[in-house]
Amino acid sequence: VEITSLPENKIKGIMERLEGAAPASQVIRVLSQQGGMSAAQLARATGLARSTISMAVNDLKAEQIVVELADIQRSVQGAGRPGTTLTLNPDAGTCIGIHLGIEDIQIVVADMAHSFLAEETISLGMDYEPDDVLPAIRKTCAALYRTSKLPMSGLLGVGVSVSGPVRPDGVLLRGGILPKWAGINIKSLFETAFRRPVIADNESNCAALAEMKWGAARGVSDFVIFKMDMGVGGAIVSNGKLVTGVAGGAGEFGHVSINPEGELCRCGNRGCLELYASFARPLKQLSRVHKRRVTMEQAIALAESGDAGALRLIADAGAYGGRGLAMIGTILNPPLILVGGRMALAGDLLLQPMRHAHAKHALLHNAELNPESRTVIRVGKFPERDSLLGAVGLVLDQALVKGVS
Amino acid sequence: VEITSLPENKIKGIMERLEGAAPASQVIRVLSQQGGMSAAQLARATGLARSTISMAVNDLKAEQIVVELADIQRSVQGAGRPGTTLTLNPDAGTCIGIHLGIEDIQIVVADMAHSFLAEETISLGMDYEPDDVLPAIRKTCAALYRTSKLPMSGLLGVGVSVSGPVRPDGVLLRGGILPKWAGINIKSLFETAFRRPVIADNESNCAALAEMKWGAARGVSDFVIFKMDMGVGGAIVSNGKLVTGVAGGAGEFGHVSINPEGELCRCGNRGCLELYASFARPLKQLSRVHKRRVTMEQAIALAESGDAGALRLIADAGAYGGRGLAMIGTILNPPLILVGGRMALAGDLLLQPMRHAHAKHALLHNAELNPESRTVIRVGKFPERDSLLGAVGLVLDQALVKGVS
Repeated sequence: VEITSLPENKIKGIMERLEGAAPASQVIRVLSQQGGMSAAQLARATGLARSTISMAVNDLKAEQIVVELADIQRSVQGAGRPGTTLTLNPDAGTCIGIHLGIEDIQIVVADMAHSFLAEETISLGMDYEPDDVLPAIRKTCAALYRTSKLPMSGLLGVGVSVSGPVRPDGVLLRGGILPKWAGINIKSLFETAFRRPVIADNESNCAALAEMKWGAARGVSDFVIFKMDMGVGGAIVSNGKLVTGVAGGAGEFGHVSINPEGELCRCGNRGCLELYASFARPLKQLSRVHKRRVTMEQAIALAESGDAGALRLIADAGAYGGRGLAMIGTILNPPLILVGGRMALAGDLLLQPMRHAHAKHALLHNAELNPESRTVIRVGKFPERDSLLGAVGLVLDQALVKGVS
Repeated sequence: VEITSLPENKIKGIMERLEGAAPASQVIRVLSQQGGMSAAQLARATGLARSTISMAVNDLKAEQIVVELADIQRSVQGAGRPGTTLTLNPDAGTCIGIHLGIEDIQIVVADMAHSFLAEETISLGMDYEPDDVLPAIRKTCAALYRTSKLPMSGLLGVGVSVSGPVRPDGVLLRGGILPKWAGINIKSLFETAFRRPVIADNESNCAALAEMKWGAARGVSDFVIFKMDMGVGGAIVSNGKLVTGVAGGAGEFGHVSINPEGELCRCGNRGCLELYASFARPLKQLSRVHKRRVTMEQAIALAESGDAGALRLIADAGAYGGRGLAMIGTILNPPLILVGGRMALAGDLLLQPMRHAHAKHALLHNAELNPESRTVIRVGKFPERDSLLGAVGLVLDQALVKGVS
C-alpha cells in the first residue's frame, strides 16, 4: 500500500532535522515519554543545564511545538504539576489509537505526549466485519478532530490494538475474538483508510507497552501482563523487549488448555483457561439470576455491595486466573505480574484468590523466598484502557524513533 | 569463601594481558568457542589476514598455548578436519564440568576448546548427600588428571550443572530432584572443595548453553529446550539470553500441574506434567512386565526392536510431552523447540507423538502457518550430555570474558 501525502506533522519534521542529542530533540523526547513537566523537571530528566533547557524550550515555543499546559487538557497521568507545565502542542502533531474490542471499538486522538484529547466508543455487537466498521471509524475520527479543533493534517500515524495474534507484517491470525478478521492484514487495511503509517499489534502487547512506558512497569525490564476481561490474554516482556513469538502468538495464556476433555473453546481447542477465568460466562450466569443484562462494571459493583453470587463468581474466576499465574510462575518465574483487563477493577476481591492459587500451584512459593526473589502480583495502572493507550504508544515509538540517540 | 592460589592457567593469563581485539586474543576465543580448526579457517572466522593469523599462531605455539590437533584427543564435535588443525593446548588450561544427576554424578575434564579429555560417572543411587559425595568427586577429578597426564594446576574453574532451580548467588532452591541439596549454596560448597571459581546453574540452563554454543541452536537467538529424562525440565532463550527468572526458576515445564487433583509430585504440587511425561514411571512398569530392571537405554532398544509395551509407553510419554510443547507454543510461540534428555534418543518414536500433540493442543497450528512462522521441533545435538557440556561452557564463558571485545 502506497502512503500518499505524508502528514504535516511539525514534531516529526523537527525531529528529522535535529540530531538525537540536540537539546530540543531531548526536550521533545522527554515530554513525549513522560508527559508535561516544568522546565526544572526537564533539566533533571535530561541532565542538561537549566539555561540550555530554557533556550531550547523558547525555540520550541516560537515554533509552536511546545506550549504551556493550561492551554490544553490534562495528561492521562493526572493533573498538571504546580508551576508552569510545558507540554507538546497537539496542533503540531497528533496520533490516533484504535482498540478493536470484542463488541465495540475504542478510538482516541492523542497528542505526542500521549494525552488523550478526544475519545469515542463505537458499539457494534459481536462478530462485526471489517467492511462495515471502517467507514464508521473514519467518520468518528474526523468528528473527534473537528470537536477538538485540531487539524487532521497533523495526524502522524495510527496504532491499532487487536485481540488475537498479529503477525509481524500486520496479518491477524486465527485465534482471536474477531473471527471475521482472521487472515486480514490490519496494517494494510487501515493504511488504505487513513493514508498514514499504521502499526497493529496484539491488544495485550499494547497493554504491556503502555504499562512499560507510563504505568506500573516503568523501569522494569522483565514482567508479564495477565489480562482478564471477556477473554484472557497476556504479554511477556523479557530483557526490556516484548516476546512476540515467531508468528506473533506469544503470551496467549488464555488458550492453554487446562482440561483436554473440557468444553470447546472459540479457538478450536478444548478446556482453555479462558473458559474458566474470563468473565464472559459469569456475566451470563449473573444476568440469568438477576433477570437482566449485568455488565462487568455492574457485576463488580454488586460484589462490592456484598452480593454473594457476584463475589463467588469473581473469586472462582480469580482462582482459575491464579492457576494461570502459577503456570507463568513455573515457566517464566518473572519478578512482576501485572493483572490487567476490566476484571482487575475488582481489586482484592479478584487478586486475593489469584495470589492464593499462585502460591498453591507454582513450583516456587513466594513465602519460602527472600523478598527480592519473589514474584510480585499487582494490578496494572491502566486496567481499562491499557490497550488503547498502548496503541497510541505504538505510534509514538515509531514517530520519534529518528530522535532516539 | 576465599579462593586461594589462583590457577596457573596460561590461557587465562594471556587473555588478561591482551586487548580483546589483539589477533592472539581473537584466535584463542575462536578456538575456544568453535573448537580446533585450520589457520585458513581461523582467518575466515576472525576476518583477519592469513599472515596476521600465522604470526599470532606462531607466538601462541611458542608459548605452548596452541598445539596441533594430532597431539591431543579429538573434539566432541567429531574428528579433526583435513590439514593441520590447531587447537588450544590442554596443558595450558583445563576446566571441570560436573553434572549432579538424579542417582549418579558425571564428571569431565575438558580443555579450553571444550574437548572432553577424560570423563567418569560416579553411581550413587537416589538421595545422595553433599557430605558423602564431595570427597568422591575430588578423588575422581584427581584421578582423571593423573590418567590424562595433565597438571591440575591448570584447572581454571569448575562448572556445576544441577537439577533444580539455582538462585543467581548459587543456592539450590526446593523443587529439584536432589531434596537433600535444597538450600545449599552449590557455588560456595564446590569453591571450598576445589579452591577455584565455581559457577553453578540449572541442568537445563546448562543444556541450553551447550546447544546454543556448539549444538542445534547455534546462531538461534530464540528457542526453548524441553528435556525428557527421569524428570522433565527445560530452559528458555529469548533474544540470545537465558531467561533465568527472578529466583532462577524459569523453564520448569515439568512442574506445571496439568491435573490439580492428580497424584502428589516430588515438588509438593499435584498432577505435574513430569509425572506423565518423564520416563521414571514407564521404566518401573517395563521392569515389572519384564521381571528385571529395565534401563532407559534398554527401553529404547526394546521399542526399536518392536516391543509393544515399550513402544506404547514412549508414545504415551510423547503425547504428554507434546502437551508441554503446546503449552510452550501458546505461551512463548518460539521458532525452535529442541527436545533433549535421554528420552530424545528414541527419535521419531518419541517425536512423532510429540509433534502430533503439539499440533492438537497449541493455539497456533503449524499446518496453517507459512513455513517461516512455524515452530520447528527437533532433537537437540547432545541429548545425553548437554548438561555436562553446558557445565564446561559455564566455565569457558567466564574464563574468557576478559577477552571478549
